[in-house]
Amino acid sequence: MSEFAPVGFADVRLEGNFWRERLDTVLARTIPSQHVQLEKHGILESLTLPNPPPPLRYPRNQHGFTVQVFWDSDVGKWIEAASYALAHRRDEKIEAQIDAIVDLFGKAQLPDGYVNCWYLDREPENRWTNLRDNHELYNLGHMLEGAVAYYQVTGRRKFLDIMERAIAHVREVFGPGPNQKHGYPGHQEIELALVKLYHLTKDKKHLELATYFINERGKKPYYFDQEAIARGANPADYWFKTYEYSQAHEPVRQQKKVVGHAVRAVYMYTAMADLAGELNDQGLKSACETLWKDVTETKMYLTAGLGPAAANEGFTKDFDLPNDTAYAETCASVALIFWAQRMLHLDLDGKYADVLEQSLFNNTLCGLSREGEHYFYSNPLEDDGGHTRWAWHTCPCCTMNVSRLIASVGGYFVSHSDDAIAFHLYGGISTTVPLKTGKVAVREVSNYPWSGDIKIHVDPETPAAFSVKVRIPGWSKGAKVTVNGQPVDASAAINSYLGIHRTWAKGDIVSLDLPMPAERIYAHPAVRMDVGRVALTRGPLVYCLEEADNPGGPVQRLRLPRDAELKSTTRADLFDGIVTIAAEAVALKDAGFERDLYRTDPPSEEPATLTALPYYLWNNRQKGSMLVWVPEA
Amino acid sequence: MSEFAPVGFADVRLEGNFWRERLDTVLARTIPSQHVQLEKHGILESLTLPNPPPPLRYPRNQHGFTVQVFWDSDVGKWIEAASYALAHRRDEKIEAQIDAIVDLFGKAQLPDGYVNCWYLDREPENRWTNLRDNHELYNLGHMLEGAVAYYQVTGRRKFLDIMERAIAHVREVFGPGPNQKHGYPGHQEIELALVKLYHLTKDKKHLELATYFINERGKKPYYFDQEAIARGANPADYWFKTYEYSQAHEPVRQQKKVVGHAVRAVYMYTAMADLAGELNDQGLKSACETLWKDVTETKMYLTAGLGPAAANEGFTKDFDLPNDTAYAETCASVALIFWAQRMLHLDLDGKYADVLEQSLFNNTLCGLSREGEHYFYSNPLEDDGGHTRWAWHTCPCCTMNVSRLIASVGGYFVSHSDDAIAFHLYGGISTTVPLKTGKVAVREVSNYPWSGDIKIHVDPETPAAFSVKVRIPGWSKGAKVTVNGQPVDASAAINSYLGIHRTWAKGDIVSLDLPMPAERIYAHPAVRMDVGRVALTRGPLVYCLEEADNPGGPVQRLRLPRDAELKSTTRADLFDGIVTIAAEAVALKDAGFERDLYRTDPPSEEPATLTALPYYLWNNRQKGSMLVWVPEA
Repeated sequence: MSEFAPVGFADVRLEGNFWRERLDTVLARTIPSQHVQLEKHGILESLTLPNPPPPLRYPRNQHGFTVQVFWDSDVGKWIEAASYALAHRRDEKIEAQIDAIVDLFGKAQLPDGYVNCWYLDREPENRWTNLRDNHELYNLGHMLEGAVAYYQVTGRRKFLDIMERAIAHVREVFGPGPNQKHGYPGHQEIELALVKLYHLTKDKKHLELATYFINERGKKPYYFDQEAIARGANPADYWFKTYEYSQAHEPVRQQKKVVGHAVRAVYMYTAMADLAGELNDQGLKSACETLWKDVTETKMYLTAGLGPAAANEGFTKDFDLPNDTAYAETCASVALIFWAQRMLHLDLDGKYADVLEQSLFNNTLCGLSREGEHYFYSNPLEDDGGHTRWAWHTCPCCTMNVSRLIASVGGYFVSHSDDAIAFHLYGGISTTVPLKTGKVAVREVSNYPWSGDIKIHVDPETPAAFSVKVRIPGWSKGAKVTVNGQPVDASAAINSYLGIHRTWAKGDIVSLDLPMPAERIYAHPAVRMDVGRVALTRGPLVYCLEEADNPGGPVQRLRLPRDAELKSTTRADLFDGIVTIAAEAVALKDAGFERDLYRTDPPSEEPATLTALPYYLWNNRQKGSMLVWVPEA
Repeated sequence: MSEFAPVGFADVRLEGNFWRERLDTVLARTIPSQHVQLEKHGILESLTLPNPPPPLRYPRNQHGFTVQVFWDSDVGKWIEAASYALAHRRDEKIEAQIDAIVDLFGKAQLPDGYVNCWYLDREPENRWTNLRDNHELYNLGHMLEGAVAYYQVTGRRKFLDIMERAIAHVREVFGPGPNQKHGYPGHQEIELALVKLYHLTKDKKHLELATYFINERGKKPYYFDQEAIARGANPADYWFKTYEYSQAHEPVRQQKKVVGHAVRAVYMYTAMADLAGELNDQGLKSACETLWKDVTETKMYLTAGLGPAAANEGFTKDFDLPNDTAYAETCASVALIFWAQRMLHLDLDGKYADVLEQSLFNNTLCGLSREGEHYFYSNPLEDDGGHTRWAWHTCPCCTMNVSRLIASVGGYFVSHSDDAIAFHLYGGISTTVPLKTGKVAVREVSNYPWSGDIKIHVDPETPAAFSVKVRIPGWSKGAKVTVNGQPVDASAAINSYLGIHRTWAKGDIVSLDLPMPAERIYAHPAVRMDVGRVALTRGPLVYCLEEADNPGGPVQRLRLPRDAELKSTTRADLFDGIVTIAAEAVALKDAGFERDLYRTDPPSEEPATLTALPYYLWNNRQKGSMLVWVPEA
């Protein structure tokens, strides 16, 4: 296992323009507006336990299910995101809002520790009878993450106390004992939250509970069958038919293929990787590696979107990656960042950082609008102009997932061990790293992702020998590295990390030059949707054609010759300065098709300049068509 | 209006191998097996009105809806199909089966004429309270078509008597009177059935009732709103939100765009065209022409499939024609044949016959398996190997639609007026046409659709002057026509029909030579799914690549150079002899993608011979991938 641990986001200052803008937007607009939406949509009211409860705002579907059963989780996730925001900038109003919510949870909690506003309000007699569908443990997971974050930032214990009591109750109810339920969550999440609680408290019993849930999952006879029978239901009536949906079809160590609901899957893999590290469990680590290989080699969009299908909000078959109907839920790509980070800290291997970066700059960032108050739930790679971000959603899980990620993004940049500092992401940060030899101030200066010209200032308190490991991204070719102007052999990188071991002194500078040409990308031929098509990338960014930049009709009429030169252009006029890609392409003409939907002559073509912009920025100006995979001419 | 009327199928002998095989299969296998399925799935039992009714076999969905409300229609449609079969070959067993069903309908019918086994069995108090959703008039339409067909073939009146009483009841309940309901069907169908009843009885009141339903449709205030309020429901809760779903959003004469549920739409257009002809109503005719133009120029698959979307089983936006998710319901293409035939008899214009033929040979025939007992409901133009015909369906509407169409296909070949005979389809038929000048025996001999070499024997009882009009299909180029070996100028054709007026005598032969090369077809550039792709056709047949003929991986790996020669080959070994198309293409290779889902180098290619077979035959050998629109290399 790797000896590296991440430097927490609260210790990392974001100084580069790219992340500063996203962070400021989230702090100033996203977090406050999310509280407004939670209030407006009755989610805060749902915590007040009126008696009788108010009418359902979201009626039950044909399976008897309403999204309101997981409202506690949305509140918990908002507290987590808001707490991360507070770490950057304390705010009395937000703190008061959090405290008010915490008070409601406190009032709702039963003496035995149980807390779930849905059940307590509407069907207290049914608690813990339907883990498969009703999200009680999932909700506690997000509340626990919120409580840990709020405590870490403010030092206030009240929410954490509530949640420790709640977890103590969970530990009484669930476990191997004869009078305990041998259950586990229908929607995984609490497992990784319990690892966070363990990190905070160092209390091993939290790790043990997470391990219990992970180990029990998928054993036969299925717990979900047994609890269904116990509540008088027929397990065969399960609306999803197979427990692959929640990765509970077989014990997790036996799972070789990534299946089912994408967010459940990746939250679970995150916890598995956490536990693999904490318990030094090679079996879990090996299972994670198998699943990682499966998903990244056969089931991931170029944007790092996961889960093509709306039907199960998740995975289908290998290489089934439809573009216009891609589900690619924002939550799933946030979860992928979590998982990738855990894998990266099991093994310092750039393949994990590459996917982390790919998800961050593409599918994840796409989930939030430029102004910070609109969201994509699904992230298709092609659209005819109908897909647009919404101000809120029936199921608002993605909203707080993207805000909590951006508010804590600094935590993904740097790791360290006793005697090494590793840089994973670039974009302008500074922090101080405590090595065995003393503190080292580091400052990474760059205009990444627009430029690959990166300077890392390494300033130890006193000269000391240690390693600086810089990641050479998988997308880069011809990277050059110097220390104080002296070349270092970049080809010596191990698993994409170039370790520079020397005695460092104040004023030392590592320069990293990552050439960043626009590139053509081709998909595996088994991805049938992308045959004969090409995508454009530059550095970590996937590009797309958007109608706003390519007026005159749907962008789908454009075809790109394989030999057309790709030109990168800095555009100060767009989104505070971005780089676009242009090429001489051809546009199909409608001429002659006035009365024919089909004909034997191919459409005529005319020259057209194609302009592509980063995928994450689409749908921020006007509605219109969009395309990532462009047909070749 | 055209003076032409079709020669009924019962008067047309199918002699060509192509249609003889399909007809024999339907008679010998499809019709009997459908009765078995109706019994097996409880549909026949549903007519027996036990009290209390048996449990629902298909539970209500979240909208309170179960498919069982339209089971009467399935039985009616089976009787229609079986009756057409009897016209070819009487069969005591089938007649007894029909009589048994008719007896059940007779027993169920109330003294006032009302008959609907669902309502009478389960909720008699609710009859006529939900036309929008519950299919009472639709059911009567199919039952009426069955009754008319059975009477025409056997002369037995019992079912017809029942249905005439039922229609008399409908006429009492619905109409403009102050004590009548000003309603119309939620699912159109009865309108065209009433025209058939009018043709049989010459009783104008049937035409008037059909006209009432058509004219009332879409008027404000909406009847569907009013009946919802009357039963205590909120019209705003309508599960489909817009009456475009059933083309009841505006009066039919104002409708310019084809919208909503495809089968409802096209059944309605069929009735509109019927009434336009019967009433000499230019407004209705003009509406039909506008809608025809809209659907054929912007919303029709190359296979003549209609309705891309499963969500509404129908139409979406112009040029929205996704291939792998195409709904393209078999019923809708059968309905398109009905509509096209009606339009063709308003104006003898080949554009209608072209679409009729396109639908018949492609989307429609595809709906039935080669062995005759399996069905496609949806007919995608691309598949990854998961789509396969089923032995029965929750909603078995398509099964009897395809069997009734094939059992009566002879009725689409020939029309006549007082002094002209028009040939629309080819494939080997003989019939006798009653002209003003006497009877004319005609025999069309060909191996169509495999060959365009067509001989038409024209044998009047005595020499007489009249016209023979032969259709020059829209797909053909360079057609040559001779009479007794003497060339006729084919370019003199008007609206694709070449009229040959002369004095005909026994032994005269018209020869039609339609060159039938394999062709490339390109879609309008606005069909974004088909940009950079080409389809192959030969004569009226659309071709596809199927994995069975292109082993070695998914057919989606194949790309066809624009200049590759297309070779047609007669294959006696396949399906009793068909013509396939082959070309030298390239296949993308997986080499180098072993661990990469994406890379900067394009996939390498290797030469590959591509083999295409007619689309309607796919999925008859083994499961596997299929593709109509092939990427160009």
